[in-house]
Amino acid sequence: MNALQKLESANHNNKFICVGLDTDINKLPESLLKESNPILEFNRRIIEATSKYAAAYKINFAFYEVEGANGLKNIEQTLNYIPQDILTIGDAKRGDIGNTSKKYASAVFNSMGFDSITLHPYMGYDSVSPFLEYDDKLNFILALTSNPGASDFEKLKLSDGSYVFQKVINAVNNWNKKKNCGIVFGATRSEELNENFEHIRDLPVLLPGVGAQGGKLHDVVNAFKEINRKRYLINISRGIIYKDSSDDFDMNAAEEIISLNNQVSNILS
Amino acid sequence: MNALQKLESANHNNKFICVGLDTDINKLPESLLKESNPILEFNRRIIEATSKYAAAYKINFAFYEVEGANGLKNIEQTLNYIPQDILTIGDAKRGDIGNTSKKYASAVFNSMGFDSITLHPYMGYDSVSPFLEYDDKLNFILALTSNPGASDFEKLKLSDGSYVFQKVINAVNNWNKKKNCGIVFGATRSEELNENFEHIRDLPVLLPGVGAQGGKLHDVVNAFKEINRKRYLINISRGIIYKDSSDDFDMNAAEEIISLNNQVSNILS
Repeated sequence: MNALQKLESANHNNKFICVGLDTDINKLPESLLKESNPILEFNRRIIEATSKYAAAYKINFAFYEVEGANGLKNIEQTLNYIPQDILTIGDAKRGDIGNTSKKYASAVFNSMGFDSITLHPYMGYDSVSPFLEYDDKLNFILALTSNPGASDFEKLKLSDGSYVFQKVINAVNNWNKKKNCGIVFGATRSEELNENFEHIRDLPVLLPGVGAQGGKLHDVVNAFKEINRKRYLINISRGIIYKDSSDDFDMNAAEEIISLNNQVSNILS
Repeated sequence: MNALQKLESANHNNKFICVGLDTDINKLPESLLKESNPILEFNRRIIEATSKYAAAYKINFAFYEVEGANGLKNIEQTLNYIPQDILTIGDAKRGDIGNTSKKYASAVFNSMGFDSITLHPYMGYDSVSPFLEYDDKLNFILALTSNPGASDFEKLKLSDGSYVFQKVINAVNNWNKKKNCGIVFGATRSEELNENFEHIRDLPVLLPGVGAQGGKLHDVVNAFKEINRKRYLINISRGIIYKDSSDDFDMNAAEEIISLNNQVSNILS
């Protein structure tokens, strides 16, 4: 299965929750700290407990890069724990001039083997195009993000009356010749989703911002239900993996994602 | 010396050339391939030969990340070869929500020990602010880049008549409370520099795009000379480090930067 097929297959089975592995050594259950590699053991147990219920796993590179070379090894090892049929997202937010982006694409898609990546649009088409050459991958390009700073540039109003982030979404549609593009669209305000479906069209959407950042699961699922479409992932990181800091953190994470899946199913049925 | 002082000290000594270490295993002199770590040996010799003449060294992360964990080790080892008084730039082009940017900042500034970093502005203030907490570092935020895609979003015209990249520059001036901000401004068209000095004001400027990307050294230096200001770095990567692929690549790189420094001095005198 290619990346898009993995996403569609998950959605077909009513799985929409992406588990964000923002694994922070300072937030691990104390019982894990005696392990030789606490971060890796945490990820292993989280994945083992949740993989039946997860639509995707998103690895936030910053949390691993802060550990240097060992952190990169932990990313690679973590990928080995994720079943082949589940979409993996390298949340790396890369984007540079062409010959540099080519190296980043090779690092994340070839060397590490991720199914998909998150990208910055700021530098335009040629900064993204080396990633688009990978037919079987998915490139989630930042459109409207879930943080307060989204107002600073993403929501600037252009001379034609549209917003910068809408130009990005329209461009991503043009770049999507190989059906390997998607967007990141913050789920903090669901009315913004409704207002922008005409731009988003059928692009896959990765939605951060539900939970810790204030977005509501119900509103997001409902917005997609109303236009009768799928191809989306709701990312939840801290709300799942740090649901509980006891020795049973993995079982509690599983319970949480099961509960989230049930909420989604109830809204969709 | 903090990062800004290193930049100012270099400029004071008429050094404006930043050597970009875009070190690619496929482009190394054949004689190096027998070394146990050809990339590191290449960087060591380039730095040893050029450090008297370089204003700064910029390490392009993509070229190292593509080698996985070993690549990260090469970044750290390369930093050890750079004399303490020369500015180091981690060309990582990071930018994410606050709690994630905090990790990236710690990775590049604390763990690796870079003096400065390049950042994506797209996600706005809170995506940059964790980097701004480091008083003694420099944050070069992408404004107008040197690639063709700069036209796609950076040069979109806003409803008030200005361009997106100008809003970024104005914002960076507002974020510069601790005098630890700068911008990246592509040097492909020097008239754009002249037209935007009123926005740039006294921000340090990192200028890519001279050489392989088509910008002219003379025009850039002249633009700054005309307004009688310094605080800038002209990055040249391939034009210096791959000047020559013989065994004397390091001496040829040194000759090239000496020649560039002489050109600059001639313009300034």
